[in-house]
Amino acid sequence: MTKMPGRPGTSGGLVLRAGQFVFAAACICAMASAPGFTSYTAFCYLIASMGLQALWSLGLACLDCYALILKRDLQQAFFMSLFVVGDWVAAILSFAAACSAGGVVVLFKRDVYFCRRDPQLPCGNFEVATAFAFLSCACSAASALIMFWILASL
Amino acid sequence: MTKMPGRPGTSGGLVLRAGQFVFAAACICAMASAPGFTSYTAFCYLIASMGLQALWSLGLACLDCYALILKRDLQQAFFMSLFVVGDWVAAILSFAAACSAGGVVVLFKRDVYFCRRDPQLPCGNFEVATAFAFLSCACSAASALIMFWILASL
Repeated sequence: MTKMPGRPGTSGGLVLRAGQFVFAAACICAMASAPGFTSYTAFCYLIASMGLQALWSLGLACLDCYALILKRDLQQAFFMSLFVVGDWVAAILSFAAACSAGGVVVLFKRDVYFCRRDPQLPCGNFEVATAFAFLSCACSAASALIMFWILASL
Repeated sequence: MTKMPGRPGTSGGLVLRAGQFVFAAACICAMASAPGFTSYTAFCYLIASMGLQALWSLGLACLDCYALILKRDLQQAFFMSLFVVGDWVAAILSFAAACSAGGVVVLFKRDVYFCRRDPQLPCGNFEVATAFAFLSCACSAASALIMFWILASL
C-alpha cells in the first residue's frame, strides 16, 4: 500500500478536498455576484464546472471524514479507479473553464479594453472568480496526480 | 519493463509524436495566416505554446526514430523522468492555450458577435487553429499519461 501524503482517507487528503471545495465555492460566489455574467459563455461554463467540482470534492471530503473517524482503508482498486476517473474529469473540466475564463478576462482588460470603456462591467469580480478557479484547479490537480500515482503503483 | 502501447522508442510512440507535431504545426499555420491575430493575447499565447509543443514533439520523434532504427531501449528511469516532466509541461501549456483561445473564439462568435459585426475578422482561421490545438493537446495528453503510467510502474 502506497504511503503517499494526500492519499484518500487521510488528513492530507481531507485538506486537499477542503481546499478544492472552498476555492470552488468562493469562485461561484464571486462570479454569481457579478451582474451580467450570464451574457458570457466562458463565465457560465466556469460556474457550471466549479459547481461540479464543489459537489465532487464535498462528497469525497465526507468520505475522507468517514474513513478517518472509523479508521477505514480506502486504498482498494475499486475505490481508487472511481476516484481517479472522477478526479481527472473534475480537474480537466475545471482547468478548461479557468483557462477559458482567464482568456476572456485578459481580452476584456488588455485587448479590447471593455473594462476601461464600460465601468459598469464587473471586471474585478471576473478576475477574482478566475483566480479562485485556478486555486481550486491546483488542489484538484494535486489530488488527481496522487490518485493516478497510487492506482499505477497498486 | 512495461509493454504499454505508445511507449517511447516504439512505432506507437512515434505516431503520437508525429500527431502532436503535425497538429501543432497546422495550428501555427492557420493562426499565422489570420491577419491581425497579434491584437489578441490568447492567440499570441496559442502560437507560442504550439511552437513549444512542435519543437518538443519533433525532438522526441527524432529520438523515437533513433531508438527504432538502432533498437535502443529508452525505458530507463532517467529518460522517463525527463519525458514525463517535458510532456506534462507541454501538455498543460498547450491545453491552457487551446482553452483560452476557445473561450475567446466562442466570445467573438456567440457573445459579442464580433464575427458578424466585423466581416474582416478572420474568425474561420481562429476556429480552425483552435481545433488543431485541441487535436495536438489530445495526442500530447495521451503521451503524458502513458509516460506517467510507465514511470509510476518502473
